[in-house]
Amino acid sequence: MKISILGGGGFLGRKIAARLAKDGTLGGHPVTGLTLFDIAEPSRPAAGFPVASLAGDIVTLPDSAIPEGTDVVFHLAAVVSAQAEADYDLGRRVNLRGTDAVIDRCRALVAAGGKPPRVVFTSSIASFSGSQNVTVADNTRQVPGNSYGAQKAAAELILADASRRGFLDAVSLRLPTVIVRPGRPNKAASSFFSAIVREPLLGLDAELPVADDFAVWVCSPRRALDWLLHAAVMDTGKMGLDRSIDPPGISTTVAHLLQALEDVAPGAASHVKRVEDRAIAAIVSTWPPAFEALHARTLGFSAHEPVLDVIRAFIEDDLAATRAERGL
Amino acid sequence: MKISILGGGGFLGRKIAARLAKDGTLGGHPVTGLTLFDIAEPSRPAAGFPVASLAGDIVTLPDSAIPEGTDVVFHLAAVVSAQAEADYDLGRRVNLRGTDAVIDRCRALVAAGGKPPRVVFTSSIASFSGSQNVTVADNTRQVPGNSYGAQKAAAELILADASRRGFLDAVSLRLPTVIVRPGRPNKAASSFFSAIVREPLLGLDAELPVADDFAVWVCSPRRALDWLLHAAVMDTGKMGLDRSIDPPGISTTVAHLLQALEDVAPGAASHVKRVEDRAIAAIVSTWPPAFEALHARTLGFSAHEPVLDVIRAFIEDDLAATRAERGL
Ligand SMILES: NC(=O)c1ccc[n+]([C@@H]2O[C@H](COP(=O)([O-])OP(=O)(O)OC[C@H]3O[C@@H](n4cnc5c(N)ncnc54)[C@H](O)[C@@H]3O)[C@@H](O)[C@H]2O)c1
Ligand SMILES: NC(=O)c1ccc[n+]([C@@H]2O[C@H](COP(=O)([O-])OP(=O)(O)OC[C@H]3O[C@@H](n4cnc5c(N)ncnc54)[C@H](O)[C@@H]3O)[C@@H](O)[C@H]2O)c1
Repeated sequence: MKISILGGGGFLGRKIAARLAKDGTLGGHPVTGLTLFDIAEPSRPAAGFPVASLAGDIVTLPDSAIPEGTDVVFHLAAVVSAQAEADYDLGRRVNLRGTDAVIDRCRALVAAGGKPPRVVFTSSIASFSGSQNVTVADNTRQVPGNSYGAQKAAAELILADASRRGFLDAVSLRLPTVIVRPGRPNKAASSFFSAIVREPLLGLDAELPVADDFAVWVCSPRRALDWLLHAAVMDTGKMGLDRSIDPPGISTTVAHLLQALEDVAPGAASHVKRVEDRAIAAIVSTWPPAFEALHARTLGFSAHEPVLDVIRAFIEDDLAATRAERGL
Repeated sequence: MKISILGGGGFLGRKIAARLAKDGTLGGHPVTGLTLFDIAEPSRPAAGFPVASLAGDIVTLPDSAIPEGTDVVFHLAAVVSAQAEADYDLGRRVNLRGTDAVIDRCRALVAAGGKPPRVVFTSSIASFSGSQNVTVADNTRQVPGNSYGAQKAAAELILADASRRGFLDAVSLRLPTVIVRPGRPNKAASSFFSAIVREPLLGLDAELPVADDFAVWVCSPRRALDWLLHAAVMDTGKMGLDRSIDPPGISTTVAHLLQALEDVAPGAASHVKRVEDRAIAAIVSTWPPAFEALHARTLGFSAHEPVLDVIRAFIEDDLAATRAERGL
């Protein structure tokens, strides 16, 4: 298995790379090479197979980012929600032109006689809009309420078409908000959902820009990783023209999340400060808080663990590294 | 009302231009200027207001194609279905990058203090797929079975987002197959639906690449024109984030169409030759033959006339001109 991770220096990209390095296999096949690509050269995990690391812009993707013989491409490179909202040109460039560049590289490999690479694309629930009491069905149309979501939904369409044409073999996962994100707050509008757990566990304050009864569709990094790896090896023959999946996340509320935090670390929730932020609230309040995710279950995507386990897993997997990274 | 028609030299573009020239008004307001833009300089109708005609590529849209103060842009320029399927790069360039160019021009006008122009975009039922016995609801997700449809659906998303951002004020009409198209066969996969009526009325043979019981969602040029003009002036305040409309076409079958042709011109249907064409059949057989189109009705889009009237209207409006154009 020859694998590339575009956006390999990011949160999920690093998790995939670390997991592949640890396992040495993907879907039962030995990994024979891994290429990491990001704006800044991603750090390489120690692995029992060759790992290349490249810096560059996805829009002018160098051929070496997806070398000949690549079996799986994780296409994670993206300008995230709040940033794509603040900078329209940047979002369009990276999220749409970047995806075209991935397609063109795969297409060139196929034209040269190669097999269409599996492309695992990370779309987002931000591509949907709906009120706080909507449950989204698998065939519901995406009516995005932000530029990031519109760009993700458009990229899904273009990738599904490229799959139909045999340029590549795409699986687009519409990821829920992944919590708890380690490290520092980022430019996603959803950043606070992680911050209200992570910062208190670091002994720091965090701002909550929405009401306590705000409902949200989330998943853990462990579950996201599982889904991404499953998407990389699953049989796409059953998918037909539709290459997009709403994976089975869980629906929770801020209050429920903070209660779980209190259960795990009594007193921690007092670090959460209610500070209204209308720009952030305007973006996240259009994201539906629940999905049926029936199709994903029949396609073998694993079910989600409860919220308490999500917080415990963060402490186990990422708290120490986050503390070290931030010099705390 | 200052109006631009991009793709103004095409079938529907010429019909809109002729109608505006005849009426002198749009939505009760006098037309004060019309700009036509296409690859080749479109011919200008005689009108009681200034008409400019420009040649160029939509991807490198000159500012003069959408002059300052433009109220309405009809964005019809497109690489149609069979051609976009045959030439992926061309379809992507014109159908996606072309739409970006329209957005960027409108955005520049708004940045300079102008009002967001109404942009009437012609999407297509080719952006849906489904079997011959599906009726598409207004909130059904687009799962295109061809590149043209994927590009149209992606462009709808990007235009809706641009509307939300205030760059423009879009209405995307997912037009049914417009029959009877005058002139010559074109590169749309649906070209034969018009040819099997038009060619026999010209005394010529036409090939039918699908079975007689094949069902199809159609509209007449008269109805399409009505809808396009309504979309140009309707109140978009009620639309919210969703700027796309399935207009109320009619569902018919090839057999029904040929029966109507026989009723209007006895013997004409004998010109229709059954010649299987799998490439064409593969494209059109994924287009759903019926739509609920409920939203369109509440938004004031006019109901469709029966198929017999469609054929009579072609004879009244376009048969003589087609005969002359083709030297018959
Ligand atoms: N984390 C979440 O909650 C979440 C939810 C839904 C979807 N997603 C999607 O999952 C993917 C990964 O998410 P993440 O949390 O790891 O994001 P991240 O921001 O940590 O990683 C994205 C990476 O893309 C890189 N990138 C940005 N522009 C680039 C360019 N022009 N060229 C090359 N690389 C570029 C960034 O440098 C970054 O390392 C993204 O596509 C994101 O949109 C994430
Ligand atoms: N006619 C139908 O049955 C039908 C059905 C659904 C949707 N539509 C859509 O409606 C619109 C108009 O349809 P039509 O039947 O008038 O099509 P048409 O092909 O007659 O007109 C399209 C025009 O776009 C122009 N064009 C193509 N590439 C261009 C470029 N790079 N720069 C500038 N102009 C360019 C062409 O020269 C042509 O005149 C199209 O967007 C089409 O996709 C039509």
